[in-house]
Amino acid sequence: MYERSNNRQFNELRPVTIGVGYLRNTPASVMVEFGSTKVLCAASLDDKVAPFLKNTGKGWVTAEYSMLPMSTQTRQTRESTRGKIGGRTHEIQRLIGRSLRAVTDLGAFGEKTIYIDCDVIEADGGTRTASITGAFVALVELFKDMKTRGLVEMIPVNDFVSAVSVGIVEGALMLDLEYEEDSRADVDMNFVMTGSGLFIEVQGTAEQKPFSKIQLDEMTALAKEGIDKIIARQGEALGGWRP
Amino acid sequence: MYERSNNRQFNELRPVTIGVGYLRNTPASVMVEFGSTKVLCAASLDDKVAPFLKNTGKGWVTAEYSMLPMSTQTRQTRESTRGKIGGRTHEIQRLIGRSLRAVTDLGAFGEKTIYIDCDVIEADGGTRTASITGAFVALVELFKDMKTRGLVEMIPVNDFVSAVSVGIVEGALMLDLEYEEDSRADVDMNFVMTGSGLFIEVQGTAEQKPFSKIQLDEMTALAKEGIDKIIARQGEALGGWRP
Amino acid sequence: MYERSNNRQFNELRPVTIGVGYLRNTPASVMVEFGSTKVLCAASLDDKVAPFLKNTGKGWVTAEYSMLPMSTQTRQTRESTRGKIGGRTHEIQRLIGRSLRAVTDLGAFGEKTIYIDCDVIEADGGTRTASITGAFVALVELFKDMKTRGLVEMIPVNDFVSAVSVGIVEGALMLDLEYEEDSRADVDMNFVMTGSGLFIEVQGTAEQKPFSKIQLDEMTALAKEGIDKIIARQGEALGGWRP
Amino acid sequence: MYERSNNRQFNELRPVTIGVGYLRNTPASVMVEFGSTKVLCAASLDDKVAPFLKNTGKGWVTAEYSMLPMSTQTRQTRESTRGKIGGRTHEIQRLIGRSLRAVTDLGAFGEKTIYIDCDVIEADGGTRTASITGAFVALVELFKDMKTRGLVEMIPVNDFVSAVSVGIVEGALMLDLEYEEDSRADVDMNFVMTGSGLFIEVQGTAEQKPFSKIQLDEMTALAKEGIDKIIARQGEALGGWRP
Amino acid sequence: MYERSNNRQFNELRPVTIGVGYLRNTPASVMVEFGSTKVLCAASLDDKVAPFLKNTGKGWVTAEYSMLPMSTQTRQTRESTRGKIGGRTHEIQRLIGRSLRAVTDLGAFGEKTIYIDCDVIEADGGTRTASITGAFVALVELFKDMKTRGLVEMIPVNDFVSAVSVGIVEGALMLDLEYEEDSRADVDMNFVMTGSGLFIEVQGTAEQKPFSKIQLDEMTALAKEGIDKIIARQGEALGGWRP
Amino acid sequence: MYERSNNRQFNELRPVTIGVGYLRNTPASVMVEFGSTKVLCAASLDDKVAPFLKNTGKGWVTAEYSMLPMSTQTRQTRESTRGKIGGRTHEIQRLIGRSLRAVTDLGAFGEKTIYIDCDVIEADGGTRTASITGAFVALVELFKDMKTRGLVEMIPVNDFVSAVSVGIVEGALMLDLEYEEDSRADVDMNFVMTGSGLFIEVQGTAEQKPFSKIQLDEMTALAKEGIDKIIARQGEALGGWRP
Repeated sequence: MYERSNNRQFNELRPVTIGVGYLRNTPASVMVEFGSTKVLCAASLDDKVAPFLKNTGKGWVTAEYSMLPMSTQTRQTRESTRGKIGGRTHEIQRLIGRSLRAVTDLGAFGEKTIYIDCDVIEADGGTRTASITGAFVALVELFKDMKTRGLVEMIPVNDFVSAVSVGIVEGALMLDLEYEEDSRADVDMNFVMTGSGLFIEVQGTAEQKPFSKIQLDEMTALAKEGIDKIIARQGEALGGWRP
Repeated sequence: MYERSNNRQFNELRPVTIGVGYLRNTPASVMVEFGSTKVLCAASLDDKVAPFLKNTGKGWVTAEYSMLPMSTQTRQTRESTRGKIGGRTHEIQRLIGRSLRAVTDLGAFGEKTIYIDCDVIEADGGTRTASITGAFVALVELFKDMKTRGLVEMIPVNDFVSAVSVGIVEGALMLDLEYEEDSRADVDMNFVMTGSGLFIEVQGTAEQKPFSKIQLDEMTALAKEGIDKIIARQGEALGGWRP
Repeated sequence: MYERSNNRQFNELRPVTIGVGYLRNTPASVMVEFGSTKVLCAASLDDKVAPFLKNTGKGWVTAEYSMLPMSTQTRQTRESTRGKIGGRTHEIQRLIGRSLRAVTDLGAFGEKTIYIDCDVIEADGGTRTASITGAFVALVELFKDMKTRGLVEMIPVNDFVSAVSVGIVEGALMLDLEYEEDSRADVDMNFVMTGSGLFIEVQGTAEQKPFSKIQLDEMTALAKEGIDKIIARQGEALGGWRP
Repeated sequence: MYERSNNRQFNELRPVTIGVGYLRNTPASVMVEFGSTKVLCAASLDDKVAPFLKNTGKGWVTAEYSMLPMSTQTRQTRESTRGKIGGRTHEIQRLIGRSLRAVTDLGAFGEKTIYIDCDVIEADGGTRTASITGAFVALVELFKDMKTRGLVEMIPVNDFVSAVSVGIVEGALMLDLEYEEDSRADVDMNFVMTGSGLFIEVQGTAEQKPFSKIQLDEMTALAKEGIDKIIARQGEALGGWRP
Repeated sequence: MYERSNNRQFNELRPVTIGVGYLRNTPASVMVEFGSTKVLCAASLDDKVAPFLKNTGKGWVTAEYSMLPMSTQTRQTRESTRGKIGGRTHEIQRLIGRSLRAVTDLGAFGEKTIYIDCDVIEADGGTRTASITGAFVALVELFKDMKTRGLVEMIPVNDFVSAVSVGIVEGALMLDLEYEEDSRADVDMNFVMTGSGLFIEVQGTAEQKPFSKIQLDEMTALAKEGIDKIIARQGEALGGWRP
Repeated sequence: MYERSNNRQFNELRPVTIGVGYLRNTPASVMVEFGSTKVLCAASLDDKVAPFLKNTGKGWVTAEYSMLPMSTQTRQTRESTRGKIGGRTHEIQRLIGRSLRAVTDLGAFGEKTIYIDCDVIEADGGTRTASITGAFVALVELFKDMKTRGLVEMIPVNDFVSAVSVGIVEGALMLDLEYEEDSRADVDMNFVMTGSGLFIEVQGTAEQKPFSKIQLDEMTALAKEGIDKIIARQGEALGGWRP
């Protein structure tokens, strides 16, 4: 059976750290680490909205995701050099945006756009789940700052949001996959859940071996377990803030 | 409670038709219809593979998805005019490709690439699930043709693959959403499953309202019911072919 | 001497069919067929005009042309994937637009843009002439609909427009070239003419063998003969409508 | 009736000058002027061919056309800045290439590509016809140089090629239109002809007013008259060279 | 020691000519030649400014630089064909713009943008210094024309600007490098200076061999000598105009 | 007179720190800080070279530079989103590459390309000088690693390279400008120098106010003073390594 690095148990997360205020100029900046995976998440406010929101009184939360060329073991060509953003990047940044919007009251902060930049400094599996986890904290920090500046009356976020991956590697269930595990997985799932235990996104892919309803249920339960722990860390990073 | 058009029941598919050989020059071409949604799927063979497959002895199955500008009620600008492919398109074509690869023996047809083009002629919800459904039939038809030409010994597909959407609209579960239903849905899920009832992809999104484990289970059961019926249609379209 | 398929005479058109209302959501949609060549033409209205028309009181008619990747025997890469529109596509869509504008009163429908999308489903020579033929019908159908909705008082089209190709293949004049004939032709001409027998566009190219004034006259006469027949079909498809 | 500038007669060309060797480093460079229209044409040889010609033993002649931003009265944005080449440019460079290939023996100089760059220094109508006229001279000069270097045995060009525009302006036929005339023309035609009076390209467009067979014949005759004179100038510029 | 072509002394410029009014439609057009290097500079006025200048009351001077494909001995692919502008082009056009802005009162001509197009017709080293030299003359000519049309009260240029290159070739200092010299240089510097002997830009690069403070001083003195002579030519070209 | 933040003297550097091995997977990674400016530099090896180096036996050192969108106070749009790399980025990455190549023996490590990625995490002026400083350390670290792996016999770097900015702000000379100082500067210069006190690059720009030879000399002396100190830090970061 597959042995995890650092004697990790199948249902054990890697060490999760969430450092708020990493950038001096941007209080709403967060360096989130899931083991060796390291993502810098920063939230910012733009006074404009896309045309489809004009005159609706509503704002928007959107995310951009990018990997530094040397974040992976083999250098990757920059998307700016290739002149276009790849499919995987699009998929991930759309996922992050949707996850945050699901717990945000878009009508509470006017016709503004909030950008959450998630830049992967180092990648060892789980960059999208770490990004969602950090992006949520950056978003709340931005709203805290907006509240201080009188731009919102209260923080328009109605629940925690966090994410984790689960997979089946050599027949065994595992929580929070590292790169090495991910590349050997038969099934790879990502769950985005709220603090109250509801689902925002469920994405499961069998690259090689289709999976059964029983396996789906087991993975779902394992994900919930992991997310509960991550949300506890988010709460601490936010200084005990609660929705 | 939301009333479906044409008196459809909550667990009822729209009429599904799968027309093989729509293009004269391309036997592996399929016009698939889920109600008013109409997608032309065509499979073709390219003698080259991407660099990462060179000298592996393996081939690849990939998909491209596009909507005609007038397939939707409001004309959409062509992606060729905008000069780039959007995030949604990327997401869908990656999904189609992964779904087909999950049941295909990539080692059985040499270092070749199979393209499945899915062009949406008319869109009324479910274009990605109809695409997967039609793409599977086009793929098997291409392999049939390759077998006739001696390029494969047997058809290297080990199970059926089909897809369907399920959603929660105004609190009610519904199978195979039309555009109107999709745009009102609190939760929208797409399932890709095999003939043996296993999952290849599970994708669920709560744009507005997170969902519970019970709802996830109900949606999963409803999807299975629908997929079984669609796979029956695929079998008929393929003239009774079985993996 | 070159023998045409299906015993076609040198001055005989392929079967021409013009199906109005192919798309459910778009009455101004037309599936036009010249033999195996099949083009879906759809007209739509946009309430904006390009900057050069602002405050002139005039509208515009423009066309976009595209081939599905599998419309030809050998799959073509999508222009969206290549990130740019090729020279041939530009040339054809400019030709379609000019042809339609020549019979349209651009001052009669306000500062609006009419798009005519011509998407080639299957290609066997003559896709540009079929496109012009179908685009004209779609344009009149759109104006019919605009008249019903009170956007125009009368249909601002003052003549029929249709197009046909003529060529010299192995020394012999031929009307309405198929792909096979086109690829062997010494001279290839496209004519766009009105119902009253006048020329809107004349385009002739000698890829290999320059041609004489006598040949030009013969090709011109043959084109007129063909166009008269096609215009009769347009009239029928439009339910007897006359400018 | 429309009065031409400089008392030009309806069947009179503007002064045509063809200066060979304009660039010091490129003997096959030609500055061609049709009145105020000024185009620099330069031919060069590339030892590669496009994939479709590999192992055919044949070469290719291709052209690129571009306007300096200030060649027109109102500055135009560069195509390099816009990041893509427009439809008109594509159309013209394809026309120039086809015209030259029609008189060139592509099998006589091996698997090489000849580029003809046509850069418009100043534009006052007729830039495409001036380009073809100058490009032909540059091509022959390049072949002269290749002959000197032993790359071809004889100059593989079997006839002269030149081009001129003809139009109908305020009801009157006119040869070699200036910009002012072109912008008022009801009909605008471009003819590309050989020294032996045959047609390579015929392109006529009625932007406003369709034209009759009689008008087509008159324009054709007028073009032939103009082209004969331009070809005489080409012969002089080439130092009396004859195919 | 390296011998310069045409017996040029180390501190001798190539023949400098500055022809004003090269384009008939654009009085503010200048053909500048430094030996075989030939650049067409043309200034034009656009009534818009970039967003960062809106409501500041200030205008802008910007430059675009491009080389014709055949300006160099080996044909270069057009940047429009490659679809993007290269790094060297960006660097040069930014340099030209900065140089001109340094002597222009941007507050004196309203919220307008002046474009200076510098198109290299033939390149033999020093295209950027020739461009700056010619661009300055074109700019003053444009202001003269604007003054005539009442758009400025006086010419808002407070000093001459010119540029020259200096290098170290095989150990020897040299002024105004030709291509052959430039490609052998250990150090290559470009100086942009005013008529009053002050520096606007100093750019020195040691591709192979770092240089000392003494060499820097010598190069600086040599550049000043050259620039004084070039500025004299600018004054003549401008008909004796003085800031 | 302008007062610097933190009571900095005019000839005082900000605190410089150079952290080697910031990325776990990339020993040749360096986080360099000049005060609040923070750049992550990482070197990597690619076994290919550009076509112009094939069969020369030589390698290449090239750099890529990019700013994270939130590295500046106001969020910047990503270059990948805009689809192209801007002029400033091109200028800086060319500068970094040239600076490193000037002290590297390109013939000593075969036909390989070394990439140095410089990603700005936080920007407060001097990002290009910090990048060169960190890139040099990353390059030497990469060569150390290559030596260990037997890919080079000795480290093919013949001198230190470092860079610093100098400017004139409100009439006063200043070393190592912060963003606030840079934006007020009349003159802004960047110097790249070697450990032996020679110049590799000298770039000075007077955006508003041209500068004199005396000022150029003063700025040069001040830069040398700063660079000597920075090189001392590079030596420490490299564990006492000497060329």
